[in-house]
Amino acid sequence: MTAPWITYRPELKVLDCTVRDGGLVNDHMFDDRFVKAVYQTCLDTGIDYMEIGYKASKKLFAPDKFGAWKHCDEDNIRRIVGENETPLKLTAMADAGKADWRTDILPKKDSVLDTIRVAFYVHQTTAAVDMINDAFQKGYEVTANLMAVAAAQEKEVDQALEILAETPASTLVVVDSWGSMYAEQVEILVKKYFQYGKDTGKEVGIHAHNNQQLAFANTIEAIIHGANRADASMAGLGRGPGNCPMELLIGFLRDPKFHIRPVYRVLEEH
Amino acid sequence: MTAPWITYRPELKVLDCTVRDGGLVNDHMFDDRFVKAVYQTCLDTGIDYMEIGYKASKKLFAPDKFGAWKHCDEDNIRRIVGENETPLKLTAMADAGKADWRTDILPKKDSVLDTIRVAFYVHQTTAAVDMINDAFQKGYEVTANLMAVAAAQEKEVDQALEILAETPASTLVVVDSWGSMYAEQVEILVKKYFQYGKDTGKEVGIHAHNNQQLAFANTIEAIIHGANRADASMAGLGRGPGNCPMELLIGFLRDPKFHIRPVYRVLEEH
Repeated sequence: MTAPWITYRPELKVLDCTVRDGGLVNDHMFDDRFVKAVYQTCLDTGIDYMEIGYKASKKLFAPDKFGAWKHCDEDNIRRIVGENETPLKLTAMADAGKADWRTDILPKKDSVLDTIRVAFYVHQTTAAVDMINDAFQKGYEVTANLMAVAAAQEKEVDQALEILAETPASTLVVVDSWGSMYAEQVEILVKKYFQYGKDTGKEVGIHAHNNQQLAFANTIEAIIHGANRADASMAGLGRGPGNCPMELLIGFLRDPKFHIRPVYRVLEEH
Repeated sequence: MTAPWITYRPELKVLDCTVRDGGLVNDHMFDDRFVKAVYQTCLDTGIDYMEIGYKASKKLFAPDKFGAWKHCDEDNIRRIVGENETPLKLTAMADAGKADWRTDILPKKDSVLDTIRVAFYVHQTTAAVDMINDAFQKGYEVTANLMAVAAAQEKEVDQALEILAETPASTLVVVDSWGSMYAEQVEILVKKYFQYGKDTGKEVGIHAHNNQQLAFANTIEAIIHGANRADASMAGLGRGPGNCPMELLIGFLRDPKFHIRPVYRVLEEH
C-alpha cells in the first residue's frame, strides 16, 4: 500500500485561530500569559499563521465589556509579540458590518499584522469586497471568508464567488460555521471554490466546526481535494463545540516542518 | 445539488454497543436501571441490534470482580428484556482466548440472544473459526470481528479474510480498535472485506473508535463504500475515547425507521 497519506504537501499552510475563535466563548478575555503561550506554541510547532483576534468596532463592542483581542489594538498585539521578527504571520479577522475597518485597520507599515481575514455572510458580499480592497491597498495579504455557506443557496454562493474571484484576496475559505457539513459537501465546495478562483490563482482554505465531531474529518477532506490553507485551534477551542483540534491536524500532516510536542505541552499547561 | 446523502439504504442496520463496549470503562458494573434504559432506547429509536455484553470466561474474569454484563448469564439478560418479543436483536461478544464458549454459549433455543459476535486478533483466526462454527451450529447468527486490523500486516489480513469467507459468519466487521485509521484506510479495508466476502454473500460492518475524533467520519466513510452494519453507542460510550456516537449516526442516516428523540432522552437522563 503506497498511499498518499504517507507523504505531505509543502505548500499546505496551517492557521491557528485559538485566540480569535476561542475568544468567542469568553468575550476575548484571555490573559497575556495565555496569549503568549499560544504565540510561543505556534512558533515552536512551526505553524504558519496565528490569528490573534478581531478588529471589531469599539462602538458595537465596548472595550470595557470585551477583552483586548476583540479589537487587537496595535499596542496590545506588540505587548505579546514585540516586532514579531519570526516566520509566523499574524492575522486578525474583520467582520462585515461589525468593524470600523476604514479607521481601525492601519496601513500595513504601522502594524505588526500581516494578514486581514474578511468574514461575511453571502448577503454582505459587496461590503466584503470594499473591505478586501481597502486592506489590500493598505498593504496586507487578505482572505475572503464567506461564513455559513451551508445555509446559502447555491446560486448565491456562485455569484459571490464570481465577484470574490476578481478581488485581490489571496484565499477563498470554505467556512462551515455550524459544523453541519458532511465530507461530500466539503468536497463539492472546495472544488467549486477552486473552479472560481483558479483564473486569478487563489488558494482555497477550510475552517471547520466540530458540532458533529467532523471538524477534523472535514479538514482532512478539504486538504485531500486540494485546500492549502487549514484552520485549527489548540484543543479545538472555539465557538460552540469548537474547531478542528490542532493536535490532531499536526499529527495528520506529515510535513517535517511541524512539531507536535509543543502543542501537547500547551494543552497540558493551560 | 441532488446528492446521495439525501436518501437512505434500507438494508443498513445499526448495532448499539453501549453496554458491551461502554462496560470496558467500568468493568461492566452497570445497574439494571441503566441497561433497561439503553434497551428501551434501542427499541424506541428503531435500532436493529443491541449488544448487551460479553460472554467472558468466569475463570479469567471472576464474577465477584465484574458486573453481570461481562458474562451475560441468561437469567441476567432476561431480567432486563424478558423474552424480548420485539424486533430488536440481542447480541453478545465472545473474545477468542477469553471465553469458555463451548459451555457458556448455550444452544439458541435456550437463549434470548440472537447473535454472537466473535472478536479476535489476526493470530487467533483459527480459534475464531472454531468459535464461529460452534455458535452457528448452536443456532445463532454469527459475525467475525477481526480486531486491531490497523496493526496487522496486509498479507495476514488477506489470509484471515480468505479463511473467514468460508465460515458461516454473516458479516465481516472492520474494527479500528485504537481509532487510528483515516478515511482512506477505512475505504481500502471495506472494499477488501467485500472482495473476500462477496462469493459467500457476507455483509461488511464497521466498528470505529474515537481516538482522533474520527469514529463518526470513518463510520460514514464505511457506509459510503457499502458497509451495511454500523456500530455506535449512546454518547459514544466505549473503551478509551469511545465509539461512534449513536446520536450523530442516527442524525446522519435518513432512514425514517430511526427516531432520534429517544437517544437524546437517554443522554439527558443518564
